[in-house]
Amino acid sequence: MSTNVRVVVDAMGGDNAPGEIVKGALEALDGQKNLTLIFTGQQKPLEAELKKYKYDKNRVRTVFAEEVIEMAEPPVAAIRKKKNSSIVTGLTMLKHGEADAFVSAGSTGAVLAGGQLIVGRLKGVERPPLAPLIPTSKGVSLLIDCGANVDARASHLVQFAKMGAIYMQHVMGVKNPRVAIVNIGAEEEKGNALVKEAMPLLKECKDIHFTGSIEARDIPYGAADVIVCEAFVGNVILKLFEGTSSMLLSQVKKTLMTSLRTKIGGALIKPALKATLKDFDSSKYGGAPMLGLKGLVVKTHGSAKAPEVKHSVIQCVNFSRQKINEKISQQFAKESPES
Amino acid sequence: MSTNVRVVVDAMGGDNAPGEIVKGALEALDGQKNLTLIFTGQQKPLEAELKKYKYDKNRVRTVFAEEVIEMAEPPVAAIRKKKNSSIVTGLTMLKHGEADAFVSAGSTGAVLAGGQLIVGRLKGVERPPLAPLIPTSKGVSLLIDCGANVDARASHLVQFAKMGAIYMQHVMGVKNPRVAIVNIGAEEEKGNALVKEAMPLLKECKDIHFTGSIEARDIPYGAADVIVCEAFVGNVILKLFEGTSSMLLSQVKKTLMTSLRTKIGGALIKPALKATLKDFDSSKYGGAPMLGLKGLVVKTHGSAKAPEVKHSVIQCVNFSRQKINEKISQQFAKESPES
Repeated sequence: MSTNVRVVVDAMGGDNAPGEIVKGALEALDGQKNLTLIFTGQQKPLEAELKKYKYDKNRVRTVFAEEVIEMAEPPVAAIRKKKNSSIVTGLTMLKHGEADAFVSAGSTGAVLAGGQLIVGRLKGVERPPLAPLIPTSKGVSLLIDCGANVDARASHLVQFAKMGAIYMQHVMGVKNPRVAIVNIGAEEEKGNALVKEAMPLLKECKDIHFTGSIEARDIPYGAADVIVCEAFVGNVILKLFEGTSSMLLSQVKKTLMTSLRTKIGGALIKPALKATLKDFDSSKYGGAPMLGLKGLVVKTHGSAKAPEVKHSVIQCVNFSRQKINEKISQQFAKESPES
Repeated sequence: MSTNVRVVVDAMGGDNAPGEIVKGALEALDGQKNLTLIFTGQQKPLEAELKKYKYDKNRVRTVFAEEVIEMAEPPVAAIRKKKNSSIVTGLTMLKHGEADAFVSAGSTGAVLAGGQLIVGRLKGVERPPLAPLIPTSKGVSLLIDCGANVDARASHLVQFAKMGAIYMQHVMGVKNPRVAIVNIGAEEEKGNALVKEAMPLLKECKDIHFTGSIEARDIPYGAADVIVCEAFVGNVILKLFEGTSSMLLSQVKKTLMTSLRTKIGGALIKPALKATLKDFDSSKYGGAPMLGLKGLVVKTHGSAKAPEVKHSVIQCVNFSRQKINEKISQQFAKESPES
C-alpha cells in the first residue's frame, strides 16, 4: 500500500445523498494530504453536486455508475444484479486494488453482502464482523459483531475479539484494550451454549487482554473497550441503545415544554445539555468498519450527514496508515495456514 | 382456588430485607380484603420487623426458615441444599397448595430454579419464562423470556407468546395485545435460525394477535405489548434498557450541576422531570412473573423497596382473581395432552 490513501465514496447511499456525502468527503481533503477521493454514483447528480465546491481536482476522481441499490432490496440479489451500482462499482475497485477503502451510507445488507462476495476475506478470517463504535460515559467502545454474521460459532467470536482489539489499539489509540464478552451474569456458570464454548477459548487467547463477562447494564458505562457478541445480540444492543437514548431525550425535551417554568429552566440548561449530548455523538469517530476484508469497508448511518462522512473518510486514512489489515493478516494467517 | 388469595412473601430476599419487604407486603393488605400474607424467613428479624406495625393478625402468618440463600450461590445447589431457607419453604407451600403465590426479591437464579424444580410446570408448558414489564413512552410492555431458558427452541417462543398475551390481556387489561418477536430487521428474510423457525409458527397461531418482527430500537416506544425473545436476548434487553436509562439520567443530573445557571434551570424543571421519570418506573406494576408454573412466582428487583413489594403482592391477587393459570392450563393442555 502506498502512503497515498485512496478512498471510494458511495455518493448515492443514504438519506442525504449525494449532498451531504459529497460535502463531508470533500471536507476530509483539507487535513489529509495523502488522501485521494473517488466518488461513485450517477453522473448527473454527482457532477451537479461537485460543481458547488472548490477542491484540488488532482485528488478527486469520479467513476460513474448509473444503477442505485435501494434500502429495501434483498441484499445478495441486489449485489448480483446491479453490477453498475455505486456499491458494486466501489467494492470492485477495492477488490482489484484500485482503492484502499470504501465508505457507504447505503443499504447495510448490500454493503455487508458485497464486502464478503466482492472484496473477499483476508486469509484466515472466517467471518468479517461489522464493528460500530458506541458512545459511553467514559468515551467509546467497539461493539463487534453487530450485523454481519448471525448464528456465529465460538471460533468466530475469538476472531472478533482479536480484530476488535487490533482496531481499538491502533485506530482509536486505546492501550491494551479490555476485551469482554456479552453475558447474562458475571458468574462462571452463566451463559448460553455459545458463550460457554467461547469463554475458555477467549481466556486462553494470549493476543488479547480478556476481562471476562460484561453484563448489558454495564455497557453504557464503558466497562470494556471491545464488546464481543454474535451479530443478533450485537444488533439488538446497538439499536436498543439508540432507541432508548432517543426516546428518553425526547421525553426530557417534551417535559421542558410543559409550562412557562420548565421553558425558562430549559433555556438555562440548554447549552450545557447540548455539550453533554455531544459527548454521546459517536459520528465524530466515523462509521462502522467491516473488519477482516481485503480492503476496508466502512458503513455509516443511513442518516449520516457531512461530519460523519468526513470522519469516516479520515477513519479510512488512519486505518490504512496504521496498516490494520497487515496486522490482522499477520495474526490470522499464522493460525489458519490452510484457509 | 378459593376467593381468598394466599401470598407467601420471602422476608429475607433482597438488599432491603426484611424491613422494606415486610412494610410493603403489609401495605397491600389495606385495599385487598381477601388477601392473606404468609411471611417466610428467620424468626428473630422477622418478628422484630412485624412488631413495628399494626395489622389484622388473622390475615398474616409466619413460617420460620432459618437458612438464607445468598445472591452469589449456585442456584440449583442452593435450592437442593438449603431446604430450610425462605425460598425453598415458600415454594414448597406453593407446590402443596398451601399458598397461591410467592414473592421474592432474593437470588433470581434460585427463584427460577426453585420454581421449576419445586413448584413444577403446568401440564403442556415446556419452559416457564420470566416476564418482566418494561416501561415505554406509551405505557408498559411485557418482555418474555428474560432469564429463565437460554438456548430456547422455536416451540418455546410460541408458548411464551401465548402466555404473555394472556397475562397482558387479563392482568394488565390490554385488549387484544400486540405480540411481536425481537428481530434484527423488519424484512421477511432477516433473523437468526431460531427466529426464522419461530416466525411461521407465530403467524399460524390463532390464539394471539401477532404483528411480526420488532426491532430493538422500537421497543422503548412501545411498538408491541408482548415482546417475545429467548432468554439471553431478553436479559440483554432488560439490562441494557436499565443501564442506558440510568447512565443517561445521571449524565443529565451531572450537567445540571455544572454552573449556577444550570442549577437554577435544574431547580425550575425538577418537579416536571420527576413526574416524567415516574412514568418510567415499572415498579408500580409489581415484579416479574414466572409464568406457566403450578403456582404464581413473582421475582421483584433485588433492590426492591416497599412500593414494589406492595404492588407485587397486589399483582398476585389480580393474577389469582383472573384465573390466569386456569387460562394457561386450558390452552396448553389441549395442545399437548401427552405431556
